[in-house]
Amino acid sequence: MNVKISQTADIQKFFQEASGFGNDEGSPRLKRIMLRVLQDTAKLIEDLDITDDEFWTAVDYLNRLGGRGEAGLLIAGLGLEHFLDLLNDAKDAEIGRIGGTPRTIEGPLYVAGAPIAQGEARMDDGSEAAVATPMFLEGRVLDLDGQPVAGAVVDVWHANTKGNYSYFDKSQSEYNLRRRIVTDAEGRYRARSIVPSGYGCDPQGPTQECLNQLGRHGQRPAHIHFFISAPGYRHLTTQINLSGDKYLWDDFAYATRDGLVGELNFVENAAAAAKRGVDGRFAEIEFSFQLQKAASAADEQRSHRPRALQVQGA
Amino acid sequence: MNVKISQTADIQKFFQEASGFGNDEGSPRLKRIMLRVLQDTAKLIEDLDITDDEFWTAVDYLNRLGGRGEAGLLIAGLGLEHFLDLLNDAKDAEIGRIGGTPRTIEGPLYVAGAPIAQGEARMDDGSEAAVATPMFLEGRVLDLDGQPVAGAVVDVWHANTKGNYSYFDKSQSEYNLRRRIVTDAEGRYRARSIVPSGYGCDPQGPTQECLNQLGRHGQRPAHIHFFISAPGYRHLTTQINLSGDKYLWDDFAYATRDGLVGELNFVENAAAAAKRGVDGRFAEIEFSFQLQKAASAADEQRSHRPRALQVQGA
Repeated sequence: MNVKISQTADIQKFFQEASGFGNDEGSPRLKRIMLRVLQDTAKLIEDLDITDDEFWTAVDYLNRLGGRGEAGLLIAGLGLEHFLDLLNDAKDAEIGRIGGTPRTIEGPLYVAGAPIAQGEARMDDGSEAAVATPMFLEGRVLDLDGQPVAGAVVDVWHANTKGNYSYFDKSQSEYNLRRRIVTDAEGRYRARSIVPSGYGCDPQGPTQECLNQLGRHGQRPAHIHFFISAPGYRHLTTQINLSGDKYLWDDFAYATRDGLVGELNFVENAAAAAKRGVDGRFAEIEFSFQLQKAASAADEQRSHRPRALQVQGA
Repeated sequence: MNVKISQTADIQKFFQEASGFGNDEGSPRLKRIMLRVLQDTAKLIEDLDITDDEFWTAVDYLNRLGGRGEAGLLIAGLGLEHFLDLLNDAKDAEIGRIGGTPRTIEGPLYVAGAPIAQGEARMDDGSEAAVATPMFLEGRVLDLDGQPVAGAVVDVWHANTKGNYSYFDKSQSEYNLRRRIVTDAEGRYRARSIVPSGYGCDPQGPTQECLNQLGRHGQRPAHIHFFISAPGYRHLTTQINLSGDKYLWDDFAYATRDGLVGELNFVENAAAAAKRGVDGRFAEIEFSFQLQKAASAADEQRSHRPRALQVQGA
């Protein structure tokens, strides 16, 4: 038996009423979206014969997902954030906006307001010196002709050796491994940091609970996130995923893309280390970005996605 | 421009992978549901030209919704819980399971494990005696032939004079206005309680935020919830909504149904009050239930919806 009522006039009218079509207040846009959500949800329930128990399990899951603030993590894990990248790529291609460094997902772990430095910055607080490998990251921000973009902001964030991010990991110092670096006259940025480890979903969290039911792991390769912005240029959200990581092309969040793989060059040379101001083995990585020209002021900005903002002393 | 990629073979393959179709672990049922969710979501994004900002506003909303534990409240407010009732009614009709007291939504505020009493119970803790009107509620549990069902459990819960529910409103005593009453040989249950007020969504909560955008209020009429269960009978989840309330047929959760309206009879008579053991004005309400026979053991049980369970002393 597969009884269906969702396409009846009565039910369609009911969903219109529930979506606010019976009044003139509120947001016409949200009403339109909500009506579609209700129609799609009802049709899904009927088509797949969703049981009451399945339905309420899903509702409870939403409470637990939000209770842990993992909606953005799940969205990445289900590939919907990557889908948005592919859709935006297709929209760009349709109007001939091509070239430059590819976009890829932001993920849910950005924190606004990291310290700003001119040209170069030290990103790590030294707390993992005993276990971490120093990493020297540098590169340039260029336009599509290969000309330097001076004064671009390279907003960079990455995980520590445990794969954890400051702010969300309260054991780390404020803005550890998060910096904004303004490019110099040659468009160059330089950072000293530590080699990050890959990120893994909390094994006890609701995202991993869902992934387990899908038979999937919740691991990401080691990677470094970037927002690149400059007046007159289109904002770029991207990341470099590090070669050699077993999850490089098996990223649960589907962020790795051609053109976004970074090569860590490990150096074991006392003289080179001394020149870098470190002892022993260290890593170098170079990665440059090419930006499209902005077509509008809005183009220069990242999305208005709600993001964490660390409040001093909080 | 309305660029669409979701129906391409590449994207469909990607969603299959994200839903776990590439592995043999996990739950085949959830994989199937998740694939449909991804397909529907992508199509909705394309059809309605959902912007990145709209998408991330929705993701943030899910975090805030779950952070407040309001997923069940929103589901009721959007009419999806009522839709499930209508769908279950249609499924029943299809196989000729008709008659008895109509079902209606449970809502998200049940708490398991209320005190059990034989035949009658006092439900209120007396804390609102100065402002509340005493209410005497009674009725019978009957089968479809009108014969009494002895030993049925009438699990009843309702709000206080402020429209708040114990457990969720921590200012109330444990299990205030929540009781399980076992029917006597005549199928009769009796409760002394107080007249409840209608429930309203938290004006600061995410459910009301959504309703505001839909131009809708978040108010319910005064009502009394019931689970009725007895061995050999089909579990009944229902409520009686009280006549005279301005929201009786304008319930934001769409719970009011024909056959489920209760009439409060207010009595101002010193002798009657003395007989009832109260002073001054009081209310009487009578409501009886008719149960269908269970077709299976599972039929006797309520859904396995995750519910609150008050832990003694917690």
